Amino acid sequence: MYVANVLEVAGETVEEGAVGVRIKWMIDKHKGAPNFALRHFTVAPGGHTPRHKHAWEHEVYILSGTATVTGGEQEHRVKPGDCLLIPPEELHQFRNTGTEPLEFLCLVPNDSY
Amino acid sequence: MYVANVLEVAGETVEEGAVGVRIKWMIDKHKGAPNFALRHFTVAPGGHTPRHKHAWEHEVYILSGTATVTGGEQEHRVKPGDCLLIPPEELHQFRNTGTEPLEFLCLVPNDSY
Repeated sequence: MYVANVLEVAGETVEEGAVGVRIKWMIDKHKGAPNFALRHFTVAPGGHTPRHKHAWEHEVYILSGTATVTGGEQEHRVKPGDCLLIPPEELHQFRNTGTEPLEFLCLVPNDSY
Repeated sequence: MYVANVLEVAGETVEEGAVGVRIKWMIDKHKGAPNFALRHFTVAPGGHTPRHKHAWEHEVYILSGTATVTGGEQEHRVKPGDCLLIPPEELHQFRNTGTEPLEFLCLVPNDSY
């Protein structure tokens, strides 16, 4: 069993269309994950992820903060405890519209990275 | 995009060797997930999951509470923010050794259910 806490893992700044976004790769194929990766994101107030789409899905769990998430033509206000499935090829973006850091988990299949 | 909050989804009692365990299947193949499922677990104080092993991995994120988790010959005290990779065929068990409910996310590949 591999165990790591989010407070112990170094984050990286997300570039390419992101503002105020940090990512921590907590579990991935390099640590032995057979199928999918667990990443922890922090988005500063006013920050956002890239507005983009790709061939793989996201499964997301909102840990803290509030955000507006666009998925295709839909826009959702999300809060802690919300679980999101963003299907492959859907245009999407997370924007921190609150005053606290937005934290969420985002999982992706191994063949996406 | 599919969105659901853990407070809105009905849970099921986990049987077969579990005590005080509830599961909510938040995202799975029946909701269109291509590769893996996101489940939310609650374990009451004093409760535990089955001590078992199987052919697929678990990726776990501890949301609240404290627990003792066995994985093979190892035993870990875990806390919020801990991420666990339990590899295929490793014997494992979660025991809530605290006084508050233990809540965690546990993700599994689609071919396991």
